[in-house]
Amino acid sequence: MRDFLPAEKVRRERILAVIREVYRSHGFDEIETPVAEDSERLHAGLGGDNEKLAFGILKRGLTRDDLQAAQEPLDLADLGLRFDLTVPLARFYASHRAELPAVFRSIQIAPVWRAERPQKGRYRQFVQCDIDVLGEPGPRAEAELLVATLDALDALGLAGGFIRVNDRRLLIGMLATFGFAPDEYDGALVTIDKLDKIAQDGVLAELRERGYTAAAIDELETFFSRPTTAEFLPFGDAAIRTALPDDPDAEALAGLVAIGEAVAAARGTDAVLLRFDPFLVRGMGYYTGPIFELAHPSVDYSLGGGGRYDGMIGQFLGTEVPATGFSLGFERLVDLVDLPAREGVEAIALLHDADVDLAQLLTLKAELIAVGSRVRLVARPKNVKPTLDALAKEGFTSFTFVDRSTTLASIALRSLNETPQS
Amino acid sequence: MRDFLPAEKVRRERILAVIREVYRSHGFDEIETPVAEDSERLHAGLGGDNEKLAFGILKRGLTRDDLQAAQEPLDLADLGLRFDLTVPLARFYASHRAELPAVFRSIQIAPVWRAERPQKGRYRQFVQCDIDVLGEPGPRAEAELLVATLDALDALGLAGGFIRVNDRRLLIGMLATFGFAPDEYDGALVTIDKLDKIAQDGVLAELRERGYTAAAIDELETFFSRPTTAEFLPFGDAAIRTALPDDPDAEALAGLVAIGEAVAAARGTDAVLLRFDPFLVRGMGYYTGPIFELAHPSVDYSLGGGGRYDGMIGQFLGTEVPATGFSLGFERLVDLVDLPAREGVEAIALLHDADVDLAQLLTLKAELIAVGSRVRLVARPKNVKPTLDALAKEGFTSFTFVDRSTTLASIALRSLNETPQS
Repeated sequence: MRDFLPAEKVRRERILAVIREVYRSHGFDEIETPVAEDSERLHAGLGGDNEKLAFGILKRGLTRDDLQAAQEPLDLADLGLRFDLTVPLARFYASHRAELPAVFRSIQIAPVWRAERPQKGRYRQFVQCDIDVLGEPGPRAEAELLVATLDALDALGLAGGFIRVNDRRLLIGMLATFGFAPDEYDGALVTIDKLDKIAQDGVLAELRERGYTAAAIDELETFFSRPTTAEFLPFGDAAIRTALPDDPDAEALAGLVAIGEAVAAARGTDAVLLRFDPFLVRGMGYYTGPIFELAHPSVDYSLGGGGRYDGMIGQFLGTEVPATGFSLGFERLVDLVDLPAREGVEAIALLHDADVDLAQLLTLKAELIAVGSRVRLVARPKNVKPTLDALAKEGFTSFTFVDRSTTLASIALRSLNETPQS
Repeated sequence: MRDFLPAEKVRRERILAVIREVYRSHGFDEIETPVAEDSERLHAGLGGDNEKLAFGILKRGLTRDDLQAAQEPLDLADLGLRFDLTVPLARFYASHRAELPAVFRSIQIAPVWRAERPQKGRYRQFVQCDIDVLGEPGPRAEAELLVATLDALDALGLAGGFIRVNDRRLLIGMLATFGFAPDEYDGALVTIDKLDKIAQDGVLAELRERGYTAAAIDELETFFSRPTTAEFLPFGDAAIRTALPDDPDAEALAGLVAIGEAVAAARGTDAVLLRFDPFLVRGMGYYTGPIFELAHPSVDYSLGGGGRYDGMIGQFLGTEVPATGFSLGFERLVDLVDLPAREGVEAIALLHDADVDLAQLLTLKAELIAVGSRVRLVARPKNVKPTLDALAKEGFTSFTFVDRSTTLASIALRSLNETPQS
C-alpha cells in the first residue's frame, strides 16, 4: 500500500476526473459502496482466485475462548475488504433495485484490496474504474461499454488502444467441436488462458499432461495453424467465422457482429478498435457471454477488461438480471498518461520577512484569494533560489516578497518561470 | 456503513470539491494514505478512546495453531483500518519529510472507520476533511486553519458558523489556580468536557464524587458564576482575561489574541467568528496548545474541531515537529448543505423505439456527446410520463423520441422541465 504525495495525488485525481467525465457523458451514474462487505458474500464463489486474497476484518468483542474455538481464520472475520467492485455492485443492485432505472449504468471509481505477495508493480490497495450495465440483455450494453472505454482512452491521450473480444459461448462451442468432454472445459480454458505466457506448444503439452481427450487436443493443434484473429472493424460474420471452427454459436456470433457494427458507427473505421480473438478466455468463471480485454501498443499487458455475467446478480436477488461490465486497471493506466498542464488558477507564493505582522499577512492572503488565486505563505529564507525552484515544481506560478510595508496595491508579482531552474 | 446512490453520490462529491478547492486556494496540498496502518501504530496511545474502535485486519496465512496461541484478538491483526486521519498524517510526514516543504500544509479528504455501536446518525465508515499545518510553531498556523475553515463554510452556503477557541495550557493553568492536584488534571478535564451534557451542577457533582480536591471544586463553583465566554472579534487580551482566573499563561493568551486579530484582518469584524470558551476541552489527550471547535446556529452539535498537537509527530520521527490541524466532520455537514444547481452540461435522454438499429443509436449518441452533451439511451416505454419524471429527477434536462428515421439533423429536443411533474 502506498502514500501519494501532493504532485502525484493531483495527477491521479485529474486523470480520474477525466475518466469520470467521459463515463458520465455516456449516461453512466456514479455510486459508492462501503469498503467492507460481509465475509460470507466475499467468499460465495463469485470472486474466483481473488477470494483467497481478501483481507479479513476481525469481529469485534472477541474473547480468548472465541480465538481458541475458531477452526480457521475466517471464523473470526465477519467482514472483509472488497477484492473487486463487481461483487459489491451485485449486492448494491440487489439492495436498491427499486430506486434505480430499469437499465442501470453504473460508474464505480474506488480502491480494492488484495493480499498479494509484495512484488514490483503489484499493490495491495489499488484503484479500479468500473462501468457496468445492469438490466440490458443485448449487445447494446456491450457496445455502450466499449465506446465509452475507447472515448475515455482518447480523452487521456492514449488513442491507439484496441479491445480484444470473444464470447464465452464461442469458447465452449469450440471445445465441444474439438471433442473435449464437458468436465474438461473449465480446466482446458485455464490452460488456454496461458497462451500469451507459454505459447501454443506449452498449451498443448499442458493439456496432454493433464490427460484430457487426446483426439480433442490434436484437433486444437491443427486449429492453431489457422489464422486466429479477425482484425478488422467492422468485422462481419464471415471474418469471425474464419477464426473459428465450423458451426459456431449463432447468437454469440450475431452479438459480436452487432457490437462491431455499433462501435464502427460511433467511432468510425479509421483505426482497428476491436480484434476478435478466439482464444481470449478471461479468468473469471462467472462470465456468460461477450468478454473483452483492453490492449495498447505501448505496453504488453492488459489495461483492463470485462464481460457479461448474467448469472451473478440472481445469486443475490433471487431474480436473474442481465449484466455486463468493463473495468479499467487504473494503476496500469496512470503511468502511461501525460495530460497537458491545466490552464488556470494563478498560484502565488508570498515570501515574507519574519517581522511582518500576522494580521497583515492574512489580509494580503485573503485579498489575493478573493480575486481567485491560490496563495501560500512562505517565510523568506536567506537563499531563496531552492525555495523558488521547489515552488515552481509544485505548480506555483508567481511569487513576491512581502515586508512590513507591502499592501495589495504595492505587490508586484514575478513569474516563477523566469527564475533560473536547477 | 452505507451505500450512496447516484443523486447522493453527485451531491457529496460536489460538496467535497468545493471544500477541496477552498483549501487549495489557501495553499494547502492534498495527499492520500492507505486505509490501513500497522496495528502497533494505531494502538500507540495517540488515538484516545478511538483506538478501541479500530477495526483489526487479520494477518494472512494464519494456522489453527496461531489462533489457539493468541492471547487476544490484536495478536492476530497486523493491520487496522484508520480511525482518524491524524495518526496516518504523522506517519506520512515522518516517512516523507525530506520531500515536503519546510512548512507543510496538508489536505486529507478520506474515509475513516470506527466500530461504533449502530445508532442513528453514527456510521462505521465516514468521511473526514482534515487540514493540518506541520512545521509552524506559531499562531500563523492556527490563523490560516481557521480562516480556511470559515471560507469553506461560506463557500458551502453555511455562513453564520463560528469557532469556539481555547488553549490546553489555559485549561491546565485554570485547574492549577483553583488548586487541583496535577494528577487530577486529566480526570477533571474529562468531567469538564461534559459541561454541555450535564451542565455546571452535574460537573461539580461528578468532580466531588470522584473525590478530587474539595477546595478546588469550590473555586470552580465560584468561577462558574462569572461570564465565561469572550464573544467579540477581535477579542483582545482584556476580553479573554475576564473569562479566566487571574494570571493566565501569557504565551497561550498572546497566541489567542494574535489568532483573533489575524482572523479579523482576513475576514472582517461584521460577524462574531470566534468565541473564547475557557471550558472548551476537546477529548484528545495529545493537544498541547490552541484548540477549536466549529459551531453553527442551525445545529446543536459540533461540525468539526481540532487543535495543536506538537508532541505527536516526534513519536514517529524522533524529532519534535510542531503541528496543528482542523477536521471537518463531513457527514454532519453534508445534510446542512444545499448548493444551488450547477450550470452546465445538457443531459439528453434518447427514448428509442425497439426496432431502431443499434449502429444508428450509437451514432446519434456519439454525435451528441461530441458536442458536449451527456446522453442516455432509454427504451421507449408505453407510458412515458413516469420515465420522463424519473429522468428529470436524475438531472436530465431534455429528451427526444428516436425512431428508425431519426438523424442528428432531424432531432428536436424537448425540455424535461416542460413535461408535467408528478
